[in-house]
Amino acid sequence: MRGYEVPMRNIKVTIAYDGTNYHGFQEQAGTRFQTVQGTLEERLSKMAKRSIKVIGAGRTDAGVHARGQVINFMPGDWPVPAERVTYVINSLLPGDIVALDSEEVPGSFHARFSAVAKTYRYTIYNGKWQSPFLRLYSYHIPKPMDHEAMRDAAGFLLGEHDFSAFRALGTPVKTTVRTLYQARVTREGDLICVELRADGFLYHMARMITGTLIRVGLGKLPASETAGIMAGRDSLRGGPTAPARGLSLEKVEY
Amino acid sequence: MRGYEVPMRNIKVTIAYDGTNYHGFQEQAGTRFQTVQGTLEERLSKMAKRSIKVIGAGRTDAGVHARGQVINFMPGDWPVPAERVTYVINSLLPGDIVALDSEEVPGSFHARFSAVAKTYRYTIYNGKWQSPFLRLYSYHIPKPMDHEAMRDAAGFLLGEHDFSAFRALGTPVKTTVRTLYQARVTREGDLICVELRADGFLYHMARMITGTLIRVGLGKLPASETAGIMAGRDSLRGGPTAPARGLSLEKVEY
Repeated sequence: MRGYEVPMRNIKVTIAYDGTNYHGFQEQAGTRFQTVQGTLEERLSKMAKRSIKVIGAGRTDAGVHARGQVINFMPGDWPVPAERVTYVINSLLPGDIVALDSEEVPGSFHARFSAVAKTYRYTIYNGKWQSPFLRLYSYHIPKPMDHEAMRDAAGFLLGEHDFSAFRALGTPVKTTVRTLYQARVTREGDLICVELRADGFLYHMARMITGTLIRVGLGKLPASETAGIMAGRDSLRGGPTAPARGLSLEKVEY
Repeated sequence: MRGYEVPMRNIKVTIAYDGTNYHGFQEQAGTRFQTVQGTLEERLSKMAKRSIKVIGAGRTDAGVHARGQVINFMPGDWPVPAERVTYVINSLLPGDIVALDSEEVPGSFHARFSAVAKTYRYTIYNGKWQSPFLRLYSYHIPKPMDHEAMRDAAGFLLGEHDFSAFRALGTPVKTTVRTLYQARVTREGDLICVELRADGFLYHMARMITGTLIRVGLGKLPASETAGIMAGRDSLRGGPTAPARGLSLEKVEY
């Protein structure tokens, strides 16, 4: 009977999106808000003339952006060549979601569970007045910030730790231990970027770490105290949660 | 009777705006579209409790942006200190218009007529797929472009010339002679920028020069032919008019 087996085709797509007008990546039962996943599923299903289910690597929140989100889907009997999917998606979708690359992957590939590392980038606009061009893509803080103190503070978080102090309650998780491989703070003119690379992120973790670093940058918290906050595993001490618009999912590694 | 003379206060403000949601800078009689000028006048008049008329240096078109537009207005008996105007405007206006600086100027200052030079910048996104973050602030051209040929072509336009070939018909003007002081073409990664500094710009001049340079960049026009097009003074040969969203008024000099 092997001859009748249908091979499970699986297509991986890297996408970028402006999250401003979406209620996050993930489709939520019972809400009428537009999501990135829902938009992709609707257009792909229409094209394939069958129901297409999209899996995303990162469940970005409402207003969070992506420059390197990864999705996968099973096209079933839709005979589209994997490399064509980029073109198909870009001709179907509104300009705020763009496919960058697509390829055939083994049936076992799962955009979320197969990921071994993710990189998030948080952008702070530290100019006197908000830029009309960055207002949807950065968090405006007009007060002078010490990005070197932020860099020192970020250093204390590197490695394998229980990151409960930087986690908003929500979805239950098996473990709150994650490994932070890299935590870079850079400044270029009025822009301060916080780049975090880890094997995984707890709910709101990137935004709560950034919120804590912002307190350090504003001189409200000594850099070394981030270690104590993390050790305390109390989310009332970590954070606050920096606004969604400054955050972008930059890269997913497999 | 000199003692009873009321000094004409005049306030100059530098503003930046995302032109996406505006029907250009200038208020147009008989239309219901929202303009930058109209938005400023409405909010300032409400604050001042009198009718405030705003003059802008450049009448940017619908969808054109500004990082350094200059306006002036007479506050009359509204006793606002000039330096406070930046704060007042930013507290009144939506986030897509931002005041950067404000100062008292002589009564004779006129944002448009007193200007001696303006700089416009045109942004081309030359990546394979449009960026969701630059889609409203650049013109996407996926085909490879030769920015060095564009630079050569721009060089032929420098100096004092009749720029009729790069002018859309519209408002009548006394003279179509302008002096182009600088025409720079630069590339940084996938971004190509055309920066034009002149003593003044004819209607659509910046966008028609850019449209001509784009033809050169795509290999459809030899760089040296821009000189001939200019000499021909025929707007059917210049251009096409590059889309508004790539253009920004960067600076006005007095």
